[in-house]
Amino acid sequence: MRTATEHLEAILATITVGPRERVPLADAVGLVLAEDVTAAVDLPRFDNSSMDGYAVQAASLAGAGAQPVRLRVVGEVAAGASGGFEVGPGQAARIMTGAPLPAGADAVIPVEQTDGAATGQVTCRAAATAGQFVRRRAEDVRAGTAVVRAGQVVGPRTVALVAASGHADCVVHRRPHVVVVSTGDELVPPGHPLGPGQIHDSNSVMLETAAVTAGASAEIRSAVGDSERDLLLVLDEAIGPMEEIGQADAIARADAARRADAARRAGAARRAADVVRRADAIVTSGGVSMGAYDIVKSGLRDKGVEFVTVAMQPGKPQGFGFVVGSSGRRVPVFALPGNPVSSYVSFELFVRPALRRMMGLVPEGRPTRRATVTARLRSPEGRRQFARAVVGRDAAGHLVAEPVAGQGSHFVADLSRANALLVVPETVTAVEPGDELDVILLGTEDGS
Amino acid sequence: MRTATEHLEAILATITVGPRERVPLADAVGLVLAEDVTAAVDLPRFDNSSMDGYAVQAASLAGAGAQPVRLRVVGEVAAGASGGFEVGPGQAARIMTGAPLPAGADAVIPVEQTDGAATGQVTCRAAATAGQFVRRRAEDVRAGTAVVRAGQVVGPRTVALVAASGHADCVVHRRPHVVVVSTGDELVPPGHPLGPGQIHDSNSVMLETAAVTAGASAEIRSAVGDSERDLLLVLDEAIGPMEEIGQADAIARADAARRADAARRAGAARRAADVVRRADAIVTSGGVSMGAYDIVKSGLRDKGVEFVTVAMQPGKPQGFGFVVGSSGRRVPVFALPGNPVSSYVSFELFVRPALRRMMGLVPEGRPTRRATVTARLRSPEGRRQFARAVVGRDAAGHLVAEPVAGQGSHFVADLSRANALLVVPETVTAVEPGDELDVILLGTEDGS
Repeated sequence: MRTATEHLEAILATITVGPRERVPLADAVGLVLAEDVTAAVDLPRFDNSSMDGYAVQAASLAGAGAQPVRLRVVGEVAAGASGGFEVGPGQAARIMTGAPLPAGADAVIPVEQTDGAATGQVTCRAAATAGQFVRRRAEDVRAGTAVVRAGQVVGPRTVALVAASGHADCVVHRRPHVVVVSTGDELVPPGHPLGPGQIHDSNSVMLETAAVTAGASAEIRSAVGDSERDLLLVLDEAIGPMEEIGQADAIARADAARRADAARRAGAARRAADVVRRADAIVTSGGVSMGAYDIVKSGLRDKGVEFVTVAMQPGKPQGFGFVVGSSGRRVPVFALPGNPVSSYVSFELFVRPALRRMMGLVPEGRPTRRATVTARLRSPEGRRQFARAVVGRDAAGHLVAEPVAGQGSHFVADLSRANALLVVPETVTAVEPGDELDVILLGTEDGS
Repeated sequence: MRTATEHLEAILATITVGPRERVPLADAVGLVLAEDVTAAVDLPRFDNSSMDGYAVQAASLAGAGAQPVRLRVVGEVAAGASGGFEVGPGQAARIMTGAPLPAGADAVIPVEQTDGAATGQVTCRAAATAGQFVRRRAEDVRAGTAVVRAGQVVGPRTVALVAASGHADCVVHRRPHVVVVSTGDELVPPGHPLGPGQIHDSNSVMLETAAVTAGASAEIRSAVGDSERDLLLVLDEAIGPMEEIGQADAIARADAARRADAARRAGAARRAADVVRRADAIVTSGGVSMGAYDIVKSGLRDKGVEFVTVAMQPGKPQGFGFVVGSSGRRVPVFALPGNPVSSYVSFELFVRPALRRMMGLVPEGRPTRRATVTARLRSPEGRRQFARAVVGRDAAGHLVAEPVAGQGSHFVADLSRANALLVVPETVTAVEPGDELDVILLGTEDGS
């Protein structure tokens, strides 16, 4: 029997960061840059005005603090205009925020300090210093320098910088695609009528959404019928061909899809690509223990998946390994136990860190804190218990953890009610009120 | 001039929680339930075994602790089977985890405590107590009770509970759809070649991804040319028709799309619906100040958008109001200033909380902490400054905030480098090293 920590280490030792892929900026959010981004242009690209006002030579306004000075309006530069004239002594050009500073001018006087005349003469009521309200070319970024480094997680501000630097896309570690394979004769899709002995397959959609919450994309495929052959067929289909679509093709296709979708797509970050995605990881639940119909175990044991017992509760039986498809492609398979709580805890402890590693993120689990337990709890000797608990703060502001009532691994309502996993070490068999233990915070459920 | 707080309050006073929508469970993650979910079935649905083993009458194994007891194997129940026979005294039925307990039986003896015989007689090496390893019907949830309440944010564990309770979908407050309208003659889409005086439109994709990060869906539409007429046309198109697609139609369509997509979709949480989505909020950037070509201001001033100056830096000029489309539909429009940093800060302060309110979430901004400032910083009197800073911990573990070098509202590289906004109150004009101030943590960029 290995510890939960050893099992995670064994998994992470085999998982590598995912392949690089060039994606449109809007699809890169939450992913990790795989290449530095170099600015293709200076930022600002040209000297420009930071105010609406008049471009002038500062010297022309000497004395304007004492009494108004009139300058001749020789032109106007809007943002996006090219200018094409000069501003000489005694002259002014109307200029808008962001517009290029015309030749000859070295300062901008804000419109509020003038009479705002559009033609003829403008009356200026303040002096100016050279450079005022002028943003200098390249003062933020010089073309050719690296503006963002590989390893950076892409968010809206990175996107802004990369776009301003002249790029519509960037190279990231590909978002892993998780195929959740549903097995088990007793399972019926959620919402469908149940026959005798049947239950709804709640694990598959739980694991699908857990994978998405961890940052992956995900889908469910069903291995109909409790046969090893069906399972292996579905796995082989999910593993898919050895060759990827050529990157250039993929980009052209994504661009075309993007243009067509631009007006009608409803979600930006993780929307469907119009391609069949191969699995980067496969997750099954159930069929891993001692039963006569545990086809995941019997079917995958000789195919590269190692089935082990882990000294934890819930989640003792675990399978993990790489399955090779008929194409020769190897994909990691997580064979999780089938009880809903066991399945969820196993995902959090083992699959989530592995997906993060694939994405190039730190392969960590959820944040852990210390909390005071408020109720008695038993725990099996020699196994690390991950008890479901509700963590809150007491009157003094300290974290307290109240174990939920139903600690059996089938209590899905109590799982849903919990917001933390209370970690009872292997050596502890009885937890008393007032004891302090680690709690793994499951967070609000909105993806954090 | 109003304060930033007053401006947010004025906005939130007009924003209401979004309409209800029934969505498949996989699409509900991150959204807020608009209706209680009532269990359609008991959980567990029937008495069942929590182990692989043999269903017995506990009394049959009296004395099995001292010496083995043999029971006659009268049948087998796999998960998903209906049983259909009885277990009497001296009898046993092979049973798999999750399989229904056959009539007559009141306990399960794990396979590890037997010789595992499939037929004939099974030798049992342990006594049993009535009820052991039996999960009782409805001990987690009784059919007809509310398992999840309206107001709950949906995550993987909620999904598991709702699915197990017999539902394939749930009613949530609709994910708001944000249309980012790009305006400005000088703007060229990212990656496209630049003419004289032109720059890349980095704001639109920044705002699009910021909206997605806040939980909305988003898209960019362009108002080509700096004309009020173009802008109003694009807005009217984004506002769309008064009538929604009938909910039944929408569900049928979503179901059909779901089936067709099941094998090929790449992203689950926010993937494209195959429908044109109307805007629930419109965001523009730029064109709100004193310039002659500020068409957002001139075009929307008489259409319901109020343009105000807010006592903050960056982000002084702000527009907000409801625009009524030709259909009569009213949509909130956020007219943000155009400098990238101003635009970003305005989104965080005003748009993000509004989107959260629409989703039924607490309309809060990012988390705020106290931090010690490490460098001198000037701030304009009478305006609340949101300076960009890098927040970290010093050797003693205290939060420290280092303002970034470029505090101008066009320094997009410094914006990207920052991880926090340092809040300098209206009354403070000079910040000294060692001063303690509020910092708004922008978080890691992966959606949190």
